Amino acid sequence: MTTSKPTAKPTAKPASKPASKPASKTAAIPDPTQTLTPNLRLDGERLWSALMTMAEIGPGVAGGNNRQTATDADGEARRLLQRWGEAAGLSQSVDRVGNMFLRREGAEPGLPPVYVGSHLDTQPTGGRYDGVLGVLAALEIIRTLDDLELRTRHPIVLVNWTNEEGGRFAPAMMGSGVFAGVHDLDWAYDQRDLDGLRFGDELARIGWRGEEPVGGRPIAAYFELHIEQGPILEAEGAPIGVVTHGQGVSWTEVTLTGSASHAGTTPMHLRQDAGLGLARAIELANRIARPRAPRAVGTVGRAALAPNSPNVIPEQAVFTVDLRSPDEAILSEMEAELRAGLERIAADLDLALALRPLERIAPVAFDPACIEAVRSAAKRLGYAARDLVSGAGHDAFWLARVAPSAMVMCPCVDGLSHNEAEAITPEWARAGAEVLMHAVLETAEIVA
Amino acid sequence: MTTSKPTAKPTAKPASKPASKPASKTAAIPDPTQTLTPNLRLDGERLWSALMTMAEIGPGVAGGNNRQTATDADGEARRLLQRWGEAAGLSQSVDRVGNMFLRREGAEPGLPPVYVGSHLDTQPTGGRYDGVLGVLAALEIIRTLDDLELRTRHPIVLVNWTNEEGGRFAPAMMGSGVFAGVHDLDWAYDQRDLDGLRFGDELARIGWRGEEPVGGRPIAAYFELHIEQGPILEAEGAPIGVVTHGQGVSWTEVTLTGSASHAGTTPMHLRQDAGLGLARAIELANRIARPRAPRAVGTVGRAALAPNSPNVIPEQAVFTVDLRSPDEAILSEMEAELRAGLERIAADLDLALALRPLERIAPVAFDPACIEAVRSAAKRLGYAARDLVSGAGHDAFWLARVAPSAMVMCPCVDGLSHNEAEAITPEWARAGAEVLMHAVLETAEIVA
Repeated sequence: MTTSKPTAKPTAKPASKPASKPASKTAAIPDPTQTLTPNLRLDGERLWSALMTMAEIGPGVAGGNNRQTATDADGEARRLLQRWGEAAGLSQSVDRVGNMFLRREGAEPGLPPVYVGSHLDTQPTGGRYDGVLGVLAALEIIRTLDDLELRTRHPIVLVNWTNEEGGRFAPAMMGSGVFAGVHDLDWAYDQRDLDGLRFGDELARIGWRGEEPVGGRPIAAYFELHIEQGPILEAEGAPIGVVTHGQGVSWTEVTLTGSASHAGTTPMHLRQDAGLGLARAIELANRIARPRAPRAVGTVGRAALAPNSPNVIPEQAVFTVDLRSPDEAILSEMEAELRAGLERIAADLDLALALRPLERIAPVAFDPACIEAVRSAAKRLGYAARDLVSGAGHDAFWLARVAPSAMVMCPCVDGLSHNEAEAITPEWARAGAEVLMHAVLETAEIVA
Repeated sequence: MTTSKPTAKPTAKPASKPASKPASKTAAIPDPTQTLTPNLRLDGERLWSALMTMAEIGPGVAGGNNRQTATDADGEARRLLQRWGEAAGLSQSVDRVGNMFLRREGAEPGLPPVYVGSHLDTQPTGGRYDGVLGVLAALEIIRTLDDLELRTRHPIVLVNWTNEEGGRFAPAMMGSGVFAGVHDLDWAYDQRDLDGLRFGDELARIGWRGEEPVGGRPIAAYFELHIEQGPILEAEGAPIGVVTHGQGVSWTEVTLTGSASHAGTTPMHLRQDAGLGLARAIELANRIARPRAPRAVGTVGRAALAPNSPNVIPEQAVFTVDLRSPDEAILSEMEAELRAGLERIAADLDLALALRPLERIAPVAFDPACIEAVRSAAKRLGYAARDLVSGAGHDAFWLARVAPSAMVMCPCVDGLSHNEAEAITPEWARAGAEVLMHAVLETAEIVA
């Protein structure tokens, strides 16, 4: 799998500096910042209706969705998007990893398109908005352009990335990862679910293993709208998050091994208690992150004791430590503190220590011009906005490797996500989609 | 279920004070401390051979045993003991809870017998000695008395208590508990294993639900030999433990509930991390026990996080806290510190706290005369001995409620128990059995 670095640069320009811009060289290409007036809005009710229609496919058990990758429900969701694209007159293609591309032609078809989208797959007990909002907001942008009979200089490509969630087939962000050259296509095909079914076979079974090569497409810029999946925007009353960075992620599996013995008969000073080691490691992960808050975080989310019996001193604790920072130097520093701290804990408690790296994603710095396009769009539209660091991984993380990229975020209730109770308001959805639209159009450039 | 308090008192007398003892009133009853000479030994090889023969029944997967209560293997082990008892001419009876009594008549059959024994059932991955040693040492005592043609004034009853382990049917120490009036017989019958089978039905199925009422038997004294299941005796090179107390046991199930949210997107100061609560509770249990060591202990042996996913902050931690002390006042103090400490942890981390008592056994103080009989036996036989507090529960804990009781312990390798790798040496087995024999005989009184 090879991918080519796009040659086009985004053409975003800060709205606050229109006077400094030289006059357009041709009459066909007006200054987009003059065309992008605050009254260019989209149809929030149509967007909401599309979200609700999509949510009928692969319903969950508690009001959310179970629409995992390469299931029948995934296929049905893709066909619905396909029909909507046909109705909008979009030309469509699917690549070998199942990524869907729906293209609205530009005034200059030879220019690299602006890509906009997210994913339609969900967690097994997922919500109605995670990923879906980004895809259907892109659709609403195209419908709005059609309504207003607006043409853009660059083509616009709506994209639905395959298997962002990774719940059925690991890893997450698979389709965009193959697209960006992070993963090999055949390796991705060989990933299996818990029933032993291959991803490649299942993708073909639902009819969405396409013919196009994966990646290698020229891209002017990539924009993605996503719910925050965190509590900051709601808490601060800001409907728009301007995502400047993606957190670097470091996952380590830690195994501490002591000695199982009877809880009633083994004096405190003769113990090798792996559970006490776990306790100190949890405090350590918190102690590493806290002085670097709010951007850095440290979490022990999964832990198991063995033999896990009330009257047996734990022989073994196996647990994951999740460290994140938007700054590579700080993330490396946190990893070093974790290793040193765990070694001290193991030595103090006479435990054996084993570390296994599970995942390491370098921090992402999104493209300054794309970020500025999002920030100025929010300002133009009058939405309160604040800069955010994305704590969760997104397709845009991989896209940023091959194209200038940025993300828009909107709030979600209580920061809840990966949960059927995930909720947003129609107002938040509309605000996010409108900011996304303005950022896309500032880059794709409206023509007369 | 009623039980009667025995009227007979043990007649143990310290070996160091023979001169102060008044002359026996009848020629038939000599001073046992004169009869119990250091050269009264038993056959260590025959004892070891019996242990190895018994271990062939219900073999484990790793050299130990899987001979759980009311399984076919339990029935087969009982039949082997029955045959050995028949060969020794013992009269046998079985009570309704399956406790087996094998009686060697005394010179004065109307006197309350001295009871001696333990249990033949094992954990699912149990060792060859836990419980079994106490039963087969009692058999070896009877065989030795037969070899030497020694009669005792009191009858001697070898006992095999039903379901000491509680691994298949909770609770542990069930047969002795019903015998001592702690549990109701019908309640015990109704306990079910993981397949939903009733204890009472399964006991009948293997043919060992007897006819005799449970409990209400006069008992001069009860002695039990058991492996230590802890590391103290081996570490100190003492083959004999004189058990003076049984630890009080307090088990509490703790549930801490916070809020699940994304580990990447939730800043440290907005978290309600139940896993961090677990960490502090583990440290708390240790901090409560440590200043009261070596006798008091505190352990978190079982813990589970939910949803237990690497990138989700734990919403809930459910875990057990096991606190033990031989002193009731100290145990109560520890329980109060646990409650107060957990309340502080929950308040600091904004977690909900729920406590559920699982088990509460008051500390046991064994009978001073019985303890002295064990201690003087070790001294007479030249075995290094040290006082021990039993950290694990044993049938003797319940027997102490209805009869003067004490326990002898012998070392086990690395303190390992409830494990197929459990190991002892033939020398330790013999030493423990010989001390048991002298303690029994000092109470049962050898007659000419």
